[in-house]
Order: sequence, then C-alpha cells, then structure tokens
Amino acid sequence: MNDIGLYGLGVMGQSLVLNMAGKGYHAAAFNKFDYEKTTLPFIVKRAGSLPVTGYRTVEEFVSSLARPRKIMLMVTAGKAVDSIIEELIPFLEEGDMIADCGNSYYKDTIRREKHLAEKGIHFFGIGVSGGEKGALEGPSIMPGGNKAFYEESFGNILEAMSARAEDGEPCCAYIGPDGAGHYVKMVHNGIEYSDIQNICEAYFLMKELLGMGNEEMADVFASWNEGRLNSYLIDITSKILRKKDENGNYIVDLILDEAGQKGTGKWASMEALDMGVAAPSVVESVLARCLSAMKQERLAASSVFPNEKIVDVRDKEQFLKDLECAVYASKIVSYAQGFALMKEASEEHDWNLDYGRIAMIWRNGCIIRAQFLSRIKDAFEEESLSNMMVSKEFIENLKECEPGWRRTAASAIAHGIYSPVIVNSLLYFDGYRSPQLPANLLQAQRDWFGAHTYHRADKPYEESFHTQWEE
Amino acid sequence: MNDIGLYGLGVMGQSLVLNMAGKGYHAAAFNKFDYEKTTLPFIVKRAGSLPVTGYRTVEEFVSSLARPRKIMLMVTAGKAVDSIIEELIPFLEEGDMIADCGNSYYKDTIRREKHLAEKGIHFFGIGVSGGEKGALEGPSIMPGGNKAFYEESFGNILEAMSARAEDGEPCCAYIGPDGAGHYVKMVHNGIEYSDIQNICEAYFLMKELLGMGNEEMADVFASWNEGRLNSYLIDITSKILRKKDENGNYIVDLILDEAGQKGTGKWASMEALDMGVAAPSVVESVLARCLSAMKQERLAASSVFPNEKIVDVRDKEQFLKDLECAVYASKIVSYAQGFALMKEASEEHDWNLDYGRIAMIWRNGCIIRAQFLSRIKDAFEEESLSNMMVSKEFIENLKECEPGWRRTAASAIAHGIYSPVIVNSLLYFDGYRSPQLPANLLQAQRDWFGAHTYHRADKPYEESFHTQWEE
Repeated sequence: MNDIGLYGLGVMGQSLVLNMAGKGYHAAAFNKFDYEKTTLPFIVKRAGSLPVTGYRTVEEFVSSLARPRKIMLMVTAGKAVDSIIEELIPFLEEGDMIADCGNSYYKDTIRREKHLAEKGIHFFGIGVSGGEKGALEGPSIMPGGNKAFYEESFGNILEAMSARAEDGEPCCAYIGPDGAGHYVKMVHNGIEYSDIQNICEAYFLMKELLGMGNEEMADVFASWNEGRLNSYLIDITSKILRKKDENGNYIVDLILDEAGQKGTGKWASMEALDMGVAAPSVVESVLARCLSAMKQERLAASSVFPNEKIVDVRDKEQFLKDLECAVYASKIVSYAQGFALMKEASEEHDWNLDYGRIAMIWRNGCIIRAQFLSRIKDAFEEESLSNMMVSKEFIENLKECEPGWRRTAASAIAHGIYSPVIVNSLLYFDGYRSPQLPANLLQAQRDWFGAHTYHRADKPYEESFHTQWEE
Repeated sequence: MNDIGLYGLGVMGQSLVLNMAGKGYHAAAFNKFDYEKTTLPFIVKRAGSLPVTGYRTVEEFVSSLARPRKIMLMVTAGKAVDSIIEELIPFLEEGDMIADCGNSYYKDTIRREKHLAEKGIHFFGIGVSGGEKGALEGPSIMPGGNKAFYEESFGNILEAMSARAEDGEPCCAYIGPDGAGHYVKMVHNGIEYSDIQNICEAYFLMKELLGMGNEEMADVFASWNEGRLNSYLIDITSKILRKKDENGNYIVDLILDEAGQKGTGKWASMEALDMGVAAPSVVESVLARCLSAMKQERLAASSVFPNEKIVDVRDKEQFLKDLECAVYASKIVSYAQGFALMKEASEEHDWNLDYGRIAMIWRNGCIIRAQFLSRIKDAFEEESLSNMMVSKEFIENLKECEPGWRRTAASAIAHGIYSPVIVNSLLYFDGYRSPQLPANLLQAQRDWFGAHTYHRADKPYEESFHTQWEE
C-alpha cells in the first residue's frame, strides 16, 4: 500500500510528489485528465526510481492508500477543490484525511473542514510557500486543522518535506485549527508584497535621486545582504540587476514597469480592512501594483505634470546609509502590521496562534526567508507583545533608524519619487506613537451630522455624549 | 388611495414620510412592531395635518396603495431587507414596485432586483445621503434600477423630495441599472471619509506645528469656507471649534480621539482593492480611523517612542497658505480616486454612469456638499476624462497647489505629524504622473521566484518573456 496520495500534477504537485518520495514515502500520484500525457510521462521521466505509482482512476488511486488514507490536493484554489472533494468522498471511509495544499481562501477552508467533519473525514488547510523549487527541495509549510489528527497523519511527512532553518529546525509546524494555516499563508503573501515594494522603492530612489547604474546598485544590495537586511529577496535583487541578455543589455532595463498580481496580497489587504486592522504598508504595496499597471495613463499624465527633478543630493554616502535605515525600519513596521493582522484573526477565530513559531517556520523555504525572522522569533518568545514594534530589539532598531528613515521619506516627498511603503510605514509608526490624534474633531463632525455620539477623554468609556451643535 | 407607502419608521423613515407628505403626496406609513407605540404617535404628533395614514398590518398597508403600488423601504441594511421583501410579496401584483432606500450593499441590490424581476415586481436601490435632517428637508438621492419604470413611478416623487442646488436643479437623478445607485452612494461615503480626514489633518497640523488655539483655527476654517474649499464640512468644522459647554470648555477638547465607523468607507475601500483601483486617499482615511481607535496602544507606544517635536515654522502665514493648497489638492485627488472607482465599476457592470450628473446631485443635500462639485460637473461635462485630475481646471489647480502641498507633506513627515490623506494624495499624484515606476524590478523578481513571466518595454504587449535568472 502507498503511504500517501497526491492529487494534481501541475508544477507544484509534481514537486511535492518528488519531494515526499525522495524522503522515502511511497506516493500515489493522480491527475484528473490525460493519464497517458500527464501521469505516465511524469512517472517515467521525473519520478524514475523513486517510490511513486501513477493511477488511472480516482478509485484505483484511493484504493492504493494505506488506511487511514492520506490525500494531498495541489490544485487551483476555488471551485475545483470543492468538486474534487465531492469526487473523493464516495471512496473514502471514516478517519480518512484530505489536505488542501493550494492557496485557498481561509473561509473556504473553514467551511470545508466543517462539511467533511460531518462525514467523519479530517480536512486540513496547508499553506505551502516557496514556489516550484521550494516545493521540490523544501518549502515553508503552514498546516491548519485538528491538531491531534494532524500529528498522527501528515505531521511527520510534512516536517520531513519542509526546508530546514540554519539551526536545523524544520520550517513546518502546526499553526492552528481549520483555516489558520491558509490564513497565515495569506498574511505571509501580504508581507511578501510589502517586502518586494520596499526593495523596489530603494532601487527607485537610488536610480532617480542618485542617478546610480545597475552594477553600482547591485553592489549596494549585495552589501546590504551582508547585514541585517540579509534575505532571499535582497540577494536575488542584487543578481537581477547584474543580469544581461545575449546582446549585453541589462534585462531589468528592458522589462515593462507594469506589475502583475495573483490576488493573495489583495486578500490580505481586504481582510485587514474588514477586521479594522491598520496595515497600510501591505495595502499600499498592493495599490502600488495597481498604479503601476496604468502605464498609458501615467505616460499621458507625465506630459501634463512633468516632474522637473532638480535633484540635489550632496552626500551620497549619507543618503545610502539613510536608505538602508529606511528599508530596514519599513520592513520592521510591515511585519508588525502582518503580525497585528494575525493577532486580530487569532482572537476572532480562537486560533491561539503562536507568533514565534510562525516566524520560525518562515526562516527558510519561503519567499520572505531572511535572518530577520530569527529576530522576530526571539522577540515573540521573550515577551508578550501588543505589537512587534515594541519588542526590546526592534525599539532600539527603530530609534536608531528613525532619523535616516525620516530624511529618506522627506526626500522622496520633496522630489516626487513615489515611495508608498517607505512613507506609509513611517506614517504608521508616527500614528502608532501619537498619544493624541485628531479623531476628536472627526467624532464631533460625526455627532453633528449623524448624531453618532462620542466618548469623552475625561469620563468613563461606558458613557456616550451627544451635543446639539447647531444653534 | 395613497400615492406611496413607506415601510420603516426609524428616524430616517419618519423624515422621508414627512418630506413626501409635505410635497403633497398621500403617504401610507407602516412599522413592523408596535403600532400603538411607534406609528400612532408619529401620525398624531409629527405628521399632524399632513396627508399621512398609519396602518396596523402589512396587508392593510399594501391594500391602501394606488396601483401600480410604490413602496419605499427605510430599514437597516442586511437580512431585514430580504425578510421584508418576502413579507410583502404575497400582497403585491405584477408591475408593483419596491425601492430600498437604506445603505444596502450594491451586490445585494443586484441580487434582489433579479429575484423580484422574476415575479414581475420592479426593484430599485436608492442611495439617500444627508442624515435625518437631509431626509426631512431635502437629501441627495441616487436612484438605481430600470430607467423606464423609475421615471414612471418614483422619479417625480424623489425629485420633489430632494435638495435643490444653487441653480435650482434637483439633487436627484437616475444613476443606472440595478445596484448603480447604491454603488454610487457607497463611493460618496468613501469620499466623505477622505474629506473628513483631510480636514482633521489640517486641524492637527495647525494645532501641533503652529500651536494654534481653537478660535484661531476656527477663523482659518471660516476663511477657507469663503474660498474654493467652501463646503458643509469646512463650515461645521469652524463652528465645532468655537463650541463651548456650560462650563466654558471647548467641547472638541473634551472628546476622546477614537474614531467610530459604520462600514461604508470600508466597503468602498474593499471594492477598490477587489477591482484593482488605486484609491489610497479613501483607503488610508479608513485605516486612520482604525489606528485612532487603538488609543491604549498609542499611549503606551508614545512613552517608548516620544516625539520630541522641535517645531520650527518660521513663516506662519506661508504655512497656512501652503496648508490650504494641501487640503484643496488632496481633495481633488481623493475625488479623482472616487470617480476612478465608479468608472471601473461602470465598465464592469455596464452601468454607463454619467459622472457630471453624479457630481451635480452631490451639490446639495449630502454630507460632502460643496461648491467644488459644480467644478467637477463642469469638468466631466466639457471633456471625456481618463481621470478627473487631468481636466483643464484641475490641472491648473494642482500645478498651482503642488509646491505648497509638497512643503506641507514634507513638514508632516519631518515632524512626525500623522497626515495620511494629505501625504497619500500627494503620493498618488506622484505615482500617477510618473512615466516610469520600479515595477520592472518587481516583475523580474516575480519571474525569478514564480516564473510569472514579464512584458518588455520594447516589444508588443502580446509577447511574454521568461528569463532563466539563476546561473
């Protein structure tokens, strides 16, 4: 009998099968369409001598699995997941298990978990990050579902498949009930959006304000990669900037500046709004992609509103030091927002999320992997934090970075260089540390036109007040 | 027989009945609960000699209406609307009409319109803005639904009930099919959020950077109200700042700075994200409310990260001139985002929205009423605009405002005074007029880690490229 089955042989599914078989698990592989053209060549060419068997029908596929059966789905999120679940049910028995490894919306996962629980089948929502290569060589894995059943079933397999952090710990750990794994994956992607935009803004400022060339900028990113900004994304940025095509042209200069997106950053932003969590760095990184995609409108507007850049950066070395501070501080603030989002969801759904553990499993395998995650892990393990920014180490970092960060943001504003993540991260910091904001005036306005009432600063919160404003 | 029925006698419903009866329409009034305690005293005390009759049962209420029957609902948005519709159906006949005047979500309106059309009943989603007083004396009304049936039925009544602009035109005009009216009302509220936050930031900057007192700030707002910023919200702000309680204390200084919200600004922001429309001024005004509500965390953080304001504003007059420019330019940009949002929805839903007409009906009756709306109306009537910012008048305004706006935003950043709408409006302007953004690097990263491919600036958009980035 096979140890585990994988349904869905796209690039990600193939990588996962090879990964688990490489760890010694006997795997059943199934793809709904075209056994001869999909499953068979995969078994022959890619799986080779690994313990992988392909099946022609769902029934054969399911029957080949040792009980309780363990089936992983790696298919496109959405209706396909529901229809495959319905397709599998007739062949399953009580105690069997399905794990959805796609980028499913966490509320769908909550719904599916309930639906299958009624039939005695255990359902898990598993966030997997790392792309095709990560899935093959070791991704970061965020599993959600019933803890006891998870540990008895997929736990060991997923841990074996996952990436390893520097200290040897697996980048896979149980996250929480039902939709918790997919939720945390969604937040991971939101943070990824702001990390990427943050780096793009650093590049944009160097290029536009300092007039630096690609090799010189690559050197800066390479040097940052030796310091506290060390990360996969900084590393590949440095390498991208040096890459030339066969004609000797820098590829980055040939690429159209219209960003694409697949939607998980948007989901994270919409969730933040829906739950009332301020996460401007994540949200603005999504909106920056939307704005970039309006290339034709931008070109037309650029002739109406030309930016006559009179750039006057006197001290380039200082500017670059400031910029490193801006990028690092903005990174801290963006992650703080992501963790605030998880905190709110954890309270709302009773997930009891362990933030240190989440940071721990992001240390390798995923797109946002970085040394930085170890610092976050330590921060959450040492202290109970209302917000990541107020941990001992990050307080020091933010204080040290603040002057350079502020100068960088002010330069971007003064010269009209669109830098929404660096600027909004600073705005969030400034708003968060303001004992007084102007919302008293806002509440007065709402009470005037809508009789919405207000609380008073000098009275218990339980009391509400209304003023007859008009004479 | 009565001309029209109104279901739901809350404060808004009562105002609407009195408004229509005051215009000579014979109105049937109904409230589901407690005829003796709700409907009867309303008829006796408030309606007085006006042609309003109250009914005890739905059947009597519906039977009292001339055919085809016209029923307006003014009840809490959500499930109540669905259950009331089901309650009414048995007593209605083909050709009868229901108009939902609450703040319903436009997708619910689309669904309800379809559902009732199958039964031969016409359904309209009507946005009504102006609060209790506006509903009584003349609100701004945004009707959506089948145009021909609307004009034969509610059209004249709603026009008679609506506010009048300075030129005597009614602030009510047909918006578009099914959910269009409720959609436009939602965008109105999103814009209202950014208008309010914009004003709050001006107040905050005057208070924190110039150390101005309430009376002095009230004078500034009063003077702005004489100029291009003339509007209801600027006017009430000036009056709020002067208002004292019975002990001679300024009320605004007593109010707790935690903002409340009822959700329509959040909806507008989530829609913007969902449709991929950059609307940062609207979104950040919602997030500013979320951040204000974290008062306890803010207080704690303020002692960890004290803002040692060393304010050095040498030329107060110049600062105030700059600030007026910042507020006006941010207002233009916020509205431009709102209209961009409507444009996207109009294309997606085939609503064929008339932007000049929408601006026209916002000129009076609603919370954002302002002279400014006449300028927007003119802009859309004179030109076909890709974006409101690039109309002749607003191009001039933005160019004139830009230096002062930029200085204000840079000051806010430099001194740590949280001003997300002023700053993000400027960022949007800067992004929108940038011929080149750093999304080329972003696309290279996505192609590296996810093989998402990219387009090239020097090749037709139809072609996609992928690079094998890793050596």
